[in-house]
Amino acid sequence: MSNTKSNTLRLKRLGIDTHGETVLFMRDDCHVCLSEGLAQHTRVQVDIGQTSLVATVNHVSGNILLQRGEAGLSEHAWRQHGWMGDELIRVSHLDALNSLSQVRGKIFGKRLTQPQLSNIISDIAAKKYSNIHLAAFLTACAARGLEISETVDLTQSMVDVGQRIDWGNTKIVDKHCVGGLPGNRTTPIVVAIVAACGFTMPKTSSRAITSPAGTADMMETLAPVDLDIATMRRVVEKENGCIVWGGSVDLSPADDILIAVERALEIDSEGQLVASILSKKIAAGSTHLVLDLPVGATAKIRSLKDAEFLGKMLRDVANAFDIKTAIIQSDGSQPVGRGIGPALEARDVLSVLNNAVDAPQDLKQRAVTLAGALIDLAEKSKSGGGNQLALETLENGKAWNKFQRICDAQGGMRQPPSAAYHQSLKAAHNGVVHSIDNRRLAKLAKLAGAPDVPAAGVDFHVRLGEVLQNGQDLLTVHAQTKAALEYAFDYVSARKVIVEIGEPK
Amino acid sequence: MSNTKSNTLRLKRLGIDTHGETVLFMRDDCHVCLSEGLAQHTRVQVDIGQTSLVATVNHVSGNILLQRGEAGLSEHAWRQHGWMGDELIRVSHLDALNSLSQVRGKIFGKRLTQPQLSNIISDIAAKKYSNIHLAAFLTACAARGLEISETVDLTQSMVDVGQRIDWGNTKIVDKHCVGGLPGNRTTPIVVAIVAACGFTMPKTSSRAITSPAGTADMMETLAPVDLDIATMRRVVEKENGCIVWGGSVDLSPADDILIAVERALEIDSEGQLVASILSKKIAAGSTHLVLDLPVGATAKIRSLKDAEFLGKMLRDVANAFDIKTAIIQSDGSQPVGRGIGPALEARDVLSVLNNAVDAPQDLKQRAVTLAGALIDLAEKSKSGGGNQLALETLENGKAWNKFQRICDAQGGMRQPPSAAYHQSLKAAHNGVVHSIDNRRLAKLAKLAGAPDVPAAGVDFHVRLGEVLQNGQDLLTVHAQTKAALEYAFDYVSARKVIVEIGEPK
Repeated sequence: MSNTKSNTLRLKRLGIDTHGETVLFMRDDCHVCLSEGLAQHTRVQVDIGQTSLVATVNHVSGNILLQRGEAGLSEHAWRQHGWMGDELIRVSHLDALNSLSQVRGKIFGKRLTQPQLSNIISDIAAKKYSNIHLAAFLTACAARGLEISETVDLTQSMVDVGQRIDWGNTKIVDKHCVGGLPGNRTTPIVVAIVAACGFTMPKTSSRAITSPAGTADMMETLAPVDLDIATMRRVVEKENGCIVWGGSVDLSPADDILIAVERALEIDSEGQLVASILSKKIAAGSTHLVLDLPVGATAKIRSLKDAEFLGKMLRDVANAFDIKTAIIQSDGSQPVGRGIGPALEARDVLSVLNNAVDAPQDLKQRAVTLAGALIDLAEKSKSGGGNQLALETLENGKAWNKFQRICDAQGGMRQPPSAAYHQSLKAAHNGVVHSIDNRRLAKLAKLAGAPDVPAAGVDFHVRLGEVLQNGQDLLTVHAQTKAALEYAFDYVSARKVIVEIGEPK
Repeated sequence: MSNTKSNTLRLKRLGIDTHGETVLFMRDDCHVCLSEGLAQHTRVQVDIGQTSLVATVNHVSGNILLQRGEAGLSEHAWRQHGWMGDELIRVSHLDALNSLSQVRGKIFGKRLTQPQLSNIISDIAAKKYSNIHLAAFLTACAARGLEISETVDLTQSMVDVGQRIDWGNTKIVDKHCVGGLPGNRTTPIVVAIVAACGFTMPKTSSRAITSPAGTADMMETLAPVDLDIATMRRVVEKENGCIVWGGSVDLSPADDILIAVERALEIDSEGQLVASILSKKIAAGSTHLVLDLPVGATAKIRSLKDAEFLGKMLRDVANAFDIKTAIIQSDGSQPVGRGIGPALEARDVLSVLNNAVDAPQDLKQRAVTLAGALIDLAEKSKSGGGNQLALETLENGKAWNKFQRICDAQGGMRQPPSAAYHQSLKAAHNGVVHSIDNRRLAKLAKLAGAPDVPAAGVDFHVRLGEVLQNGQDLLTVHAQTKAALEYAFDYVSARKVIVEIGEPK
C-alpha cells in the first residue's frame, strides 16, 4: 500500500447512520478517489492514528456535504472510536479478504473447516464484510447446510471473538425459547423461581429482532437492563439471578452483525440458529440449559419433525461444549398470556409473580414447567421434583420477593407505562375460535408501535376453542398516538384475518 | 397504508451516490420515522407525485444534513427522475415482496418456476431488492444451481424487463467472448470484417466490470460509443455494423444490477452467466452467435471440462430462443496482443486492421477465426470457406476501410491517447517463460489506472516458451501520474510473480 501524503483526507462528521456497514463518504472528484481509482462500492482500508478499519466507498457530488480534502465516515464508527472531527485519515486499497474465497468454496459445496470458520467470523466481527458478503455467507450456509461439526466450529468461532464470563465452578443454569410465540414471556418468572431456590441464573436476554418485544424490552419497563459485566456480576452475587440485555455485555458480536442481515432476509437456517443461541450461552458461562421449542403452524417451528431435528442439533452441539440440556417441546398454536408488547407483557408477568386471581394460567404453567425442568437438570433429581418445588416457590411468594430484590439490585423497580389510546376488534358473528395467526398478531402489535413504544401492543382476549358471541372483544390495540392506532387498525380491519371464527366442531 | 399528511416530508438533494441501492436519508427524530417505526434498514415505499419507488432507510442525526421535515434520497434517483428539490414525498411501509419468499424457496432447494423468476426479475429491475436480497438470490442460484429450463426462464425474464431491438427479418450476427484474457480485443476487427462482407453486426459491448478494459472502453478511445437505439440503428443501416456501449441502450437492466453484486462477491455461476450473456444477445436481436471460450489456468474458464459444460449450457439455452450458435474453445494461457488497457488495446486493433508489419499475429489469427466461424454459421457454408474470406477481407484493406466508416458514422474517429509515464519490468535472470498470470497482469493494469484512465495499462512483451536474457523487458507499465506508476510498481516488484521464468524444458 502506498502511504504517501497524497492519500490523506480530513474527517468530517455527517451524522449518517448506515447501520451494519461502515461507509466512507468521499467526493467523486476527490484526489484520492481519482489517483487510487476508488469506484463506488470499492472496499477500502481507512487508517486514523493507530486505528484501522474497513469501509465501503459511497461517492458524494457537489459541495453540500463535503469540501475538497474532506471525507465522512458513517456514525457507528464515530461512536465506537470517539473522534472529534478534523482527524486526518489515510485511505488505501483493501487486499482481498482470504476468508471470502472460503465463503465462495461453501457456495460451491465445500465443507468449512475450523480455521476457515474462524477466519470468516473474525473478519465479520472486525466489520470487514459488507452486507453483500454477509448475505452470501448466510445464504450459502442455509443452501448447503452445516454439518454438526461445522456448527460446533462456527459456535466456537463466535465465542472466540466476544467477551466470555467466568463464574468459576458455580453451576450456571439458563433457559432459552426458540421464539415466534407472542407473549411467551416466561424468563423473568423462571429466573425468580430458580434464583429463589438457590440456583445461579445470570440471564442475558435479547431485544426484539423481528418480534413486538424481546425479554430485554419487556424487562426494561420494570428495571434497568443496560448493565455492564461488572454490575451484572454484583447483582448475581447478591441475588443469584439477573435479567439483563445481552447486547450491553457484547457476548457474541459476530452474531449481532449476522442477525441484522438474517432479519432483512427473513432466513434463519438451523446451523446459524444453533450457533447463535449456543455461542451466547457458552459466552455467558451456562452449564445447564433448558430449551423451549414451541411448535405450531404459525410459530417459528412449524412441525414436530422440525422440532425433533432442531432439538437434536442443539443437544449435539451443546454436548460438544459440555453443556447439559433438556429440550421441551411446547404448544405453539396460540399466544401465551394476554399482553403482546413490552409493558403489556410485563403486566402479565407481574400478575403471575404476585399470584393475582386473574393471572394468565398458561403463562404460569409454562414458567413452572421450565423452572422445574431446570431444577431437575441441575439437581440430577427425578423428573417431577423440580416441578413441585417450582410451583411452591411461585405460590408461596418467594419468587415474587426474589424478583423485586433482583429489580432493586439492577437499579430499582419501575411501573410499566400504559398507553393513551385503545381500540378493540370485535367478533363479527357467533362461533368458535378455530385458529389464531401468531405472525399477524405480532405484526399488529408492531404496527401499533411495539417495541419502540413500550406501552404499545395488543391485548389478546380469546383462546382456541372458545365459544364467542357476535360483538365480543377479540383483542384490544394499545397505542400512544391516534395515528398509530389508526395505522394498526388499517391492517387488522381491512386486510388480514387474525382470528378465524368457525362453526363449533 | 395510511396516506395522512403527517407522512409527508420535503425532499433535499444531498448528492450521495449509493450506487445500486436507493437510500432514503431520514432524521432519526423525524416524526414519520417515529410514528411509523422506521428503523434502520427498513424498506419503505416513497411516493413523489405519480412516481413510486422503494428505498432503504438510513438514519441521520444532528442538523448538519437535514432540517426537521426534510428527507434525502440517493443520487441515482435524482438523476433518473429529474427532481428540482423541495418536492413533497410520502413515506410508507413496504409490503413484503412476494418474490423474496421464492428466493427463500430456492435457498432451501425448490426449483424456480417461470412466473416466479419473472416476479423476481421484475422486482430487481424495479430496484425493489436491497443489496442483501440481491446477494441472497445470486448465492442461492450458485449454491443450488439452475437447471437448463430455469436458465431459459431466467433469460426470458431478463429480456422481458428491458428494451428489445427489432431488425425485421435481417440475419443478425454476433460474437461473445467469455472474458478473462487480457488484451483479447477481437470484437472491432470481427465487426469490421463481417460488416465488410455484407453481414449485419450491430454490436453492443460492455464496459469493464472487473477487467482493465471492456470493449466499449477500448472503442471509446477511437469513436463515441454512447449511442441511443435510434442513432445505433442509423449507423447499422448505413454501414452494416457498429460497436457501441450496451449500457446506453438498456438491453438488460436487471442484469446490470445483478452484475454489480456479482462483482462484489466475485462469483459468476454458470446459470447467471448464461442468462446474462444471452439475455443481452436476444434483446439485441441476434440470430447467429459465435461464442469464444478461452481456457487456461488463470483465465475465467480453467479447464476443458468447465468449457464443455458451459458451452453445452449456452448452446441449449440459445436453442430455446432459436439462436444459432458456434462454440469455439481457444487458448487462454496467455494475454492476446501486447496492450492491456483501453488505448493500448486500441493501438493493437488498429495495427491489425491496417496490416502493420508489427501487428500482433495472435490477435489477428483469433479475429479471423471468429469472423470466419461467424460467416460459416450465417451462410451455412462448409467450415473453412468463412475463414478464407475473413482473411482476405482483412488483408486487402476492406475491413480497415469499413472500420473507419463505422467510426465516422458513430460520430467521428479519434486518436487514442498515450500516457505520460512509463516504466519497464525486466527479467531478473536468463531463462524461458514458463507461465504468465493473467489475473495479476490485469490487476497491474488496473492499478496503473485502467480503464478509468484510458491511456493507462500495461504493454506485455513476451510469450510463453520465449527464451529471455537477463535484463530484457518483460512488460512496460503506462500511467498518467507518477504516483499511479509507483503504486502499480509497488505491486509488481515487491509482491507478486506475474511471469515465471524457469529452465529451458
